[in-house]
Amino acid sequence: MAKDTTTIFQQGTLGLLVPGLYDGTITAGELLQHGDAGIGTLTGLNGEVIILDGHAYQAREDGVVREIAADETLPFASVHFEAPDATKALTPMDQPTFEQQTVHDYQLSNVFAAIRIDGTFKHIHTRVAPKQTKPYHTLVEATATQPEFTGDDVQGTIIGYYAPHLFQGATVGGFHLHFLSADHQLGGHLLGFDIDQATLKVQRFADFHVHLPIDNADYLQQKFDNNEIDSAINKAER
Amino acid sequence: MAKDTTTIFQQGTLGLLVPGLYDGTITAGELLQHGDAGIGTLTGLNGEVIILDGHAYQAREDGVVREIAADETLPFASVHFEAPDATKALTPMDQPTFEQQTVHDYQLSNVFAAIRIDGTFKHIHTRVAPKQTKPYHTLVEATATQPEFTGDDVQGTIIGYYAPHLFQGATVGGFHLHFLSADHQLGGHLLGFDIDQATLKVQRFADFHVHLPIDNADYLQQKFDNNEIDSAINKAER
Repeated sequence: MAKDTTTIFQQGTLGLLVPGLYDGTITAGELLQHGDAGIGTLTGLNGEVIILDGHAYQAREDGVVREIAADETLPFASVHFEAPDATKALTPMDQPTFEQQTVHDYQLSNVFAAIRIDGTFKHIHTRVAPKQTKPYHTLVEATATQPEFTGDDVQGTIIGYYAPHLFQGATVGGFHLHFLSADHQLGGHLLGFDIDQATLKVQRFADFHVHLPIDNADYLQQKFDNNEIDSAINKAER
Repeated sequence: MAKDTTTIFQQGTLGLLVPGLYDGTITAGELLQHGDAGIGTLTGLNGEVIILDGHAYQAREDGVVREIAADETLPFASVHFEAPDATKALTPMDQPTFEQQTVHDYQLSNVFAAIRIDGTFKHIHTRVAPKQTKPYHTLVEATATQPEFTGDDVQGTIIGYYAPHLFQGATVGGFHLHFLSADHQLGGHLLGFDIDQATLKVQRFADFHVHLPIDNADYLQQKFDNNEIDSAINKAER
């Protein structure tokens, strides 16, 4: 199968995590057939997944980063095959400046895009979702208390997506970024960052492909509420 | 290219019609490469498109139904290749009963599905969006006054989709059905129907593939508002 560099593939929806549907519905091995870069979470909302250069890593709540085996499963993940449209050297700037500039420079408002930033960061602030056991709590409950990690003058990579706000619920509207340090000592869902010197790669996508777990009984029976999903994403994923 | 019978392909979003982005972004010829059945509208919000057995038809505001040429363009359409999972004989029932039964019987709440009903209908009630010229009005304005058509004891086909409500905005959450009579004398967006004797075909999809017009300047620059889109869809598409 030729690598499709024009499509973001997403397993599940962010919305299904909101009421607590954390059982994995795709293996890491299958997922990597749809992309060599991306983000996600493991079954049980177990940590933050960072996929770089064809390898999937888990940032665990105890701070450890480990490579994920092909048979581990994920309830939610987004991946793509890297083929950036644009590369740009970034000078020192904070996160709000970066986000505002990037949406403007690449006209991202209504476009899906992959964002990759390799370089050194003056400051990195992450969180890692703590592993849940059944019966699962909701996403807001599960992430109400969660370990946060920080680093100064860190070398590493930010990877993730910008999605049109119309797709909030199906995914995270706006930026959804994870981080992995070059030495694998720091990772997770990004709460904040401050760029020192880095290289930005932007890849815009016309195509967004969602795969839903339509054979999963819990998914089929769940009563979703769009307003609750929107508010939970704004609380738990930013 | 092998026919993919597991994916709904959608050009654009319902959301982009809301502020009036009615310029076509895909030709009918290209669209038919992604499916042989489906629904949509033509450039200028010019009528209702019904795609059956590989042929695309326009139900026009003057009541005429005509086949669409390969080079005509559409701003929004959903298509799939037909390969139903289930076929069922339907006895007389009204639209609310049909919709409630079908969601229940095929566990559609959180699933994309194509719906096709061939048979005779005691009553059919359609509307057809009137062709707009630039500068385009919004969807709610454009559909505020529009021709409606009715028929009794009509033979024909209902074609369309059920989509999870989470995807309201990207598409129409819930049912979105069009109609074409066997004699091509009556067609359009379905406002109501009453089944006499018919055959239902249901095709569930794990995969939903959206193609966005990311090279269209109007699309890139549009400021969308999720609440406005939600309310406009509920007003204009039900």
